[in-house]
Amino acid sequence: MTAPTLIAGQWRPAKASATFRAENPATKEPLDEFPVSTWEDCDEALTAATEAFEQMRQLSGEQIAAFVEAFAGRIEGRKDEIVKVASQETALPASPRLADNELPRTTSQLRQAAAAAREGSWSMPTIDTKNNIRSMLGPIGPVVVFGPNNFPLAFNSASGGDFAAAIAAGNPVIAKANSSHPGTTKLLAEEAFAAGQAAKMPAATVQLIYRTSHADGERLVSDPRVGATGYTGSRGAGLKLKAAADKAGKPIYLELSSVNPVVILPGALEERLEAIAGEFATSCLMGTGQFCTNPGLLVLVAGDATERFLETVVGKFKAAPVGTLLSAGVAKSLSQGIGQLIRAGAHTLVGGKVAGGKGYCHGNTLLRATGEQFLEAPEALQTEAFGNASLAIVAADLDQACQVLEHLEGNLTGCVYSHTGGADDAAYDRVATPLRFKVGRLLNDKMPTGVAVSAAMNHGGPYPATFPAQWDPKLGIHVT
Amino acid sequence: MTAPTLIAGQWRPAKASATFRAENPATKEPLDEFPVSTWEDCDEALTAATEAFEQMRQLSGEQIAAFVEAFAGRIEGRKDEIVKVASQETALPASPRLADNELPRTTSQLRQAAAAAREGSWSMPTIDTKNNIRSMLGPIGPVVVFGPNNFPLAFNSASGGDFAAAIAAGNPVIAKANSSHPGTTKLLAEEAFAAGQAAKMPAATVQLIYRTSHADGERLVSDPRVGATGYTGSRGAGLKLKAAADKAGKPIYLELSSVNPVVILPGALEERLEAIAGEFATSCLMGTGQFCTNPGLLVLVAGDATERFLETVVGKFKAAPVGTLLSAGVAKSLSQGIGQLIRAGAHTLVGGKVAGGKGYCHGNTLLRATGEQFLEAPEALQTEAFGNASLAIVAADLDQACQVLEHLEGNLTGCVYSHTGGADDAAYDRVATPLRFKVGRLLNDKMPTGVAVSAAMNHGGPYPATFPAQWDPKLGIHVT
Repeated sequence: MTAPTLIAGQWRPAKASATFRAENPATKEPLDEFPVSTWEDCDEALTAATEAFEQMRQLSGEQIAAFVEAFAGRIEGRKDEIVKVASQETALPASPRLADNELPRTTSQLRQAAAAAREGSWSMPTIDTKNNIRSMLGPIGPVVVFGPNNFPLAFNSASGGDFAAAIAAGNPVIAKANSSHPGTTKLLAEEAFAAGQAAKMPAATVQLIYRTSHADGERLVSDPRVGATGYTGSRGAGLKLKAAADKAGKPIYLELSSVNPVVILPGALEERLEAIAGEFATSCLMGTGQFCTNPGLLVLVAGDATERFLETVVGKFKAAPVGTLLSAGVAKSLSQGIGQLIRAGAHTLVGGKVAGGKGYCHGNTLLRATGEQFLEAPEALQTEAFGNASLAIVAADLDQACQVLEHLEGNLTGCVYSHTGGADDAAYDRVATPLRFKVGRLLNDKMPTGVAVSAAMNHGGPYPATFPAQWDPKLGIHVT
Repeated sequence: MTAPTLIAGQWRPAKASATFRAENPATKEPLDEFPVSTWEDCDEALTAATEAFEQMRQLSGEQIAAFVEAFAGRIEGRKDEIVKVASQETALPASPRLADNELPRTTSQLRQAAAAAREGSWSMPTIDTKNNIRSMLGPIGPVVVFGPNNFPLAFNSASGGDFAAAIAAGNPVIAKANSSHPGTTKLLAEEAFAAGQAAKMPAATVQLIYRTSHADGERLVSDPRVGATGYTGSRGAGLKLKAAADKAGKPIYLELSSVNPVVILPGALEERLEAIAGEFATSCLMGTGQFCTNPGLLVLVAGDATERFLETVVGKFKAAPVGTLLSAGVAKSLSQGIGQLIRAGAHTLVGGKVAGGKGYCHGNTLLRATGEQFLEAPEALQTEAFGNASLAIVAADLDQACQVLEHLEGNLTGCVYSHTGGADDAAYDRVATPLRFKVGRLLNDKMPTGVAVSAAMNHGGPYPATFPAQWDPKLGIHVT
């Protein structure tokens, strides 16, 4: 039976143009069947969300907070089933990854959002008693959330970061499930809806569709009834949605792609080559490399230590098990990405082939190119190969390494490893200057994976990593 | 002699494709001649701004503040000449408007920006000691500022709000003069440059070009070297720049148009018809109606009081002197705007003709249409007629008035006048609900003109009034 959509407070059959099936990427076996909604479903969801939004505007932060907390509790209550389905759909390990890390993170995020809704300072109230002017931020209207494939719980469109932020501020959410984990999304939406019903939230506070045509997706994000859209996913699909939303003057918050450059300075290699090689291999292969902050681009300066470092990493890549990728789509795009890098001049130090693991997989891959090659084809050599693959750029010298950094696109993160005794300090200043403006977050002596949920954490970066860049100062300050 | 541009710290002849002349709108006499820059000028300015930006990043807030304050002092030192040229170019009265209101506002804004640069909390530093994460806002890179025609000083691209905000945050500015007051802009840029030289700011901290082709303007805002653009002006030109910037993933902050609806409820008319008519006429005709917050759309409920109110306003419009418009362009677009409203079904209660004043002018104009007409052609009847003209919509009843409000585009402001004794309270709630989401700022019992420079002042509004809307909550809050 095809799974029902959740529209206007009803779990009901989609007005569907087609169906698709979830798939177990470890076994390549088909799982449940889900509908591709027509515009009719989107239209009904938008109308219902508009009504829900009007009702939500009457609710207190306390009421919203209680609902969100109840939802978090319900996720915990149905933990085993949610983890099981998520693991089936994504091949991510049930434990520790899903049960012990991602699910607690998800409920913690929801509770932080609830606390913010209750406390209310996110609205940044400003009172000018002299001029009798008051201003504050407020909810923006129905928010469409397109969640990514790689966090079936913590960034799920029906339970993740964008969802939590939108709901906490008083916006109803139309969740568009990621096609690689629709069953997980359905379970989460069931709990969100049940929590909403018990808390007397408007019926369409949370709605769920699984998939639409590309044209309907573009129509959805630019519909006059929409307040804003949150999207995390591939650059190609994201830019199409951006173009549609931009044309309509609708805000869209995008996280698109990032190769997360890691610069390792000569003194750091001299000092602790083995340790850094270990950190890099772990960061690169963790979760089969399917993190937004995966270190996809290494920048090194030519020399014996660099050769030894790369050999060490190759050894670790060979020794490490090959993980299963999230879906057939990820496997295909990883192969394509590696192919593009090779066509652009990179050569393979290890891996590069579809092999070595269970289901959809690709051998742990390390590619290599020179700084000169990079400067000749900077765009092609920044192709994101999402998964367990990285490209090492070996620059002739520090000057060329800086030039490489100047040719980077916008990224989420940039890392610099330097000698702890200060031997790299001058080199650090030189590389950090160009790198700083290419990344949203600069890390010192740490790999980019591992994003803490913290008010100080910036997960934005210059376009095309995200848009808007979250460090965007809006021309600095408003003096008028 | 054609005026020089200010590029890379040099006042030098433009690499020009053509020239244009400023014009005195009160006499229609030509004033000085200015160049239309080719891409070569833009390209040189961008390269110089990139270098200036790198240098500015090394400066303290104190150094930037001292420069901005010195600039404010220099504007005051050259006040007579600046006011004289601005008055010649715009027909705005030298006193009190320019000398006593706008110039002090300009220098006050600059000093507020300097204080913000010195104090530094605009960067919103956030420190997470537990996870060892720090984040803060920073400058974004060279900012291109397109200033509007209607505030030759306070929103001038070389001295106004966007300029001050960009510079205070450490961004060099490429000022694109408004073609209706290029001479004023040149004087201000001279003082900004001289203040910068004395304060040892980078040579290209402030640069000035006067005009470019439309294609070069679009190329400018989407150039990889640009950090962001600020634009205030016509919707047509602004949307072309937005499309170019959007495509390149470059932030652009736009203020485009607004008719600033004013709802007058029956009880308010009953109570104080004459006073409100006076406030409306003053707000509407002040500055010959050339304010971004000019009340261009009245919403009234049919009845005897409404008829008396409109008669009173007509009397005041007839009795008031007809001001001079800012330029030939404003006069032309005002005539066109009024023509479009009439073609959409509005009829003229007073004015409607080019007559009555000095130079470029148009009789004080009040048009009228029914709520039914508005609902049939909501887009056409929201045509902005920038200048001394307003359209009164007389709705059959409060229901219809609410429908009218639901069909509004985004605006900067919305005003509701209601009975001070509470007789309109139920009606207020009904109209304020739809109005709230169509405007950036809701005013009670006050006309929209008069924008205080205050941290509590929101001068943004839903698209297409501005983009982004400054009340935009970015999905509410960031919990990750």
